[in-house]
Amino acid sequence: MPAIDGARLLRDLYAMRKIGEYKTGVHRPTFSPRDVESRHWLAARLSEAGLDTSIDGIGNVHGRDPTPGRKLLLGSHVETQNHAGWLDGALGVIYGLEAARTLGRGIDVAAWADEEGHFGSFIGSRSFCGLLTEAEIDACANRETGIALRDALRQAGFSDRPRQTMDRGRYRGYLEAHIEQGNELEGRHLRLGIVTAIVGSRRYRIAFKGVQNHAGTTRMSVRKDAGVALVKLVAGIEQRFPAVAGPRTVWTTGDIKLHPGAPSIVPGDAELVFQFRDTDPAILDTLEASLNELLAEAARGPCEVSVMQRGTTDPSAMDPAFQSALTAAAQHHAPNLHQPMPSGAGHDAQILARRLPSAMLFVPSIGGISHHYAENTDDADIVLGCQVFADAAASILAAE
Amino acid sequence: MPAIDGARLLRDLYAMRKIGEYKTGVHRPTFSPRDVESRHWLAARLSEAGLDTSIDGIGNVHGRDPTPGRKLLLGSHVETQNHAGWLDGALGVIYGLEAARTLGRGIDVAAWADEEGHFGSFIGSRSFCGLLTEAEIDACANRETGIALRDALRQAGFSDRPRQTMDRGRYRGYLEAHIEQGNELEGRHLRLGIVTAIVGSRRYRIAFKGVQNHAGTTRMSVRKDAGVALVKLVAGIEQRFPAVAGPRTVWTTGDIKLHPGAPSIVPGDAELVFQFRDTDPAILDTLEASLNELLAEAARGPCEVSVMQRGTTDPSAMDPAFQSALTAAAQHHAPNLHQPMPSGAGHDAQILARRLPSAMLFVPSIGGISHHYAENTDDADIVLGCQVFADAAASILAAE
Repeated sequence: MPAIDGARLLRDLYAMRKIGEYKTGVHRPTFSPRDVESRHWLAARLSEAGLDTSIDGIGNVHGRDPTPGRKLLLGSHVETQNHAGWLDGALGVIYGLEAARTLGRGIDVAAWADEEGHFGSFIGSRSFCGLLTEAEIDACANRETGIALRDALRQAGFSDRPRQTMDRGRYRGYLEAHIEQGNELEGRHLRLGIVTAIVGSRRYRIAFKGVQNHAGTTRMSVRKDAGVALVKLVAGIEQRFPAVAGPRTVWTTGDIKLHPGAPSIVPGDAELVFQFRDTDPAILDTLEASLNELLAEAARGPCEVSVMQRGTTDPSAMDPAFQSALTAAAQHHAPNLHQPMPSGAGHDAQILARRLPSAMLFVPSIGGISHHYAENTDDADIVLGCQVFADAAASILAAE
Repeated sequence: MPAIDGARLLRDLYAMRKIGEYKTGVHRPTFSPRDVESRHWLAARLSEAGLDTSIDGIGNVHGRDPTPGRKLLLGSHVETQNHAGWLDGALGVIYGLEAARTLGRGIDVAAWADEEGHFGSFIGSRSFCGLLTEAEIDACANRETGIALRDALRQAGFSDRPRQTMDRGRYRGYLEAHIEQGNELEGRHLRLGIVTAIVGSRRYRIAFKGVQNHAGTTRMSVRKDAGVALVKLVAGIEQRFPAVAGPRTVWTTGDIKLHPGAPSIVPGDAELVFQFRDTDPAILDTLEASLNELLAEAARGPCEVSVMQRGTTDPSAMDPAFQSALTAAAQHHAPNLHQPMPSGAGHDAQILARRLPSAMLFVPSIGGISHHYAENTDDADIVLGCQVFADAAASILAAE
């Protein structure tokens, strides 16, 4: 198998890190000036590597191998969470670039727009897979600034371009490399993770409606305290979920808001966002049933309960043959320092997996830190990961 | 006993309601242009009633009877909570004005600045009682806008004036009338409440420090979820407090904040504001001991717990002779339609009670609604309350 150029790989990753540098990390939210700059920078590198390169109408960067034959598609994303890490996304894209340069042919590279969800949910990879309607684009807006996606695309200079969609016959499949974003590899002194499946998630926005009142004059017996009702639900979840969850299930109450949120006012309204994740759809169903029981119990209390939003992502199994190719390459370069593992985070690979055989490779995150500027991976692990990734890509292409 | 002029009373209350009118209520936060206007309007009415009138360096409006002899001080406040009721505060001040007009002599009237706590805690009545230092004034700022109290006083035109302090020998005592802000009188079909004591309160701002992390990749066993730790504390309070509380104890978690408050991030920080109130200091001590136990249990969990602020207000007993005077007047005008009761809300009377014999009269709140623009009291109850208030004032003055 051809050897990657580790120095070139790191040079490109460091160049990318400079675009929107923030402390030791990067602040490059989707379609911000720095994000747009990084897409043009990447397009230039892909062109230099001999690929036909374009940025399409949703902001996806595509580098296409002009030679004949079926291709392997390699990709990830370039935008970041706010004030976040330098490798989350960029690593997989630059791995793709380096693999294309190393293998010489058979590789297409993509940077999917907005994996980090500043405007929507996987809009870049879904657009490419034919899963994003014009109506949904119309409805998307930045979760913080409220700026419409259409306006952001116009400002970025991408709005008058066509959206590229997948020619399924072109592709053998899809591979994505990513930092682990957890500390399991590090904790076990392993250097590579081969993803078996990407978790599915269920997401909820739950509201309680009580009666706002004076915290001094309203006796306990007549209160309809929306905050207390909310706390009882969350405490109930923490009590019951461990018994019905799987060994790797995770569940999170990410936010709680009480209204009006004043020291001396009994809250009349309360809201929380809650989610859980697992690779097993049966476990997801069991957890949802348990949540629904708790909601029904809450509804028998003094406050009204309503589920304002539900969201669902199905678990995605990774392709067994691709997993084997990644495992063989890992075993060759780092004997017994790799493991199969699920991905607890969502990735574009879960979208691509609906159209193509897909798989993912993880490299360790130091201290498990992610979505924070302190996120990092050892240089040696970065280089090793890319070699394993390129080897697996070569063996998949050779297997045809 | 002389009869009040009910039409004049209501006319003045309605005039006051126009200053900062909001829907059926009033938006007149402390030292807002409308609040300053209301202070000047009140000062003009007190002057018309023959009182020596001034607004002092903390914004208190004083109307002083120029005739010789000891006085009874009647007062309340004119500013409101945001978008709140028209009677909360204004009722007691206009009762004072009407009593001064009706009795002709022996009455001083005061409108204490900022009872509603936009800038601090009872700064007006505490200033008058010699309980507010210049250093505390320096430190006070608007809880919403952050504007310094000094700047607000300057803008209001009050900053270059002296602060009036109490000449204790001048006063026989202090009386304050107020809406009940609860629904106990209404529920029992009563028209007047004679306050026995104002509750004391203990207030806390409690913070949890955990570790912020990715909600998909961070396994449950290694999480330090500040939000979950907070929820367990509040659920613990709801479970244990009923057993140790008194029959009229109230406790409230008024606000909860999770940081960063995103759906897919395990909260690294969480904060709540909590308070409880009772008229019995022994019960307050028992509740605090129970809270401290729960905090100690929480500290043995995965997150750090800290109490960032504690605040204490002692319960204030009302003067028995003044209660008798109010009860006798109530029994005369509304036989058996009155009751003794504690005040669950704080009032300036609890500050004045530290210097002077003090008492309070309550009139019913329709539906118990308070701190909301829908707050209201039946006109007949407003007029009845003022007559009882003036009668009691006259009998207290006559008793000397």
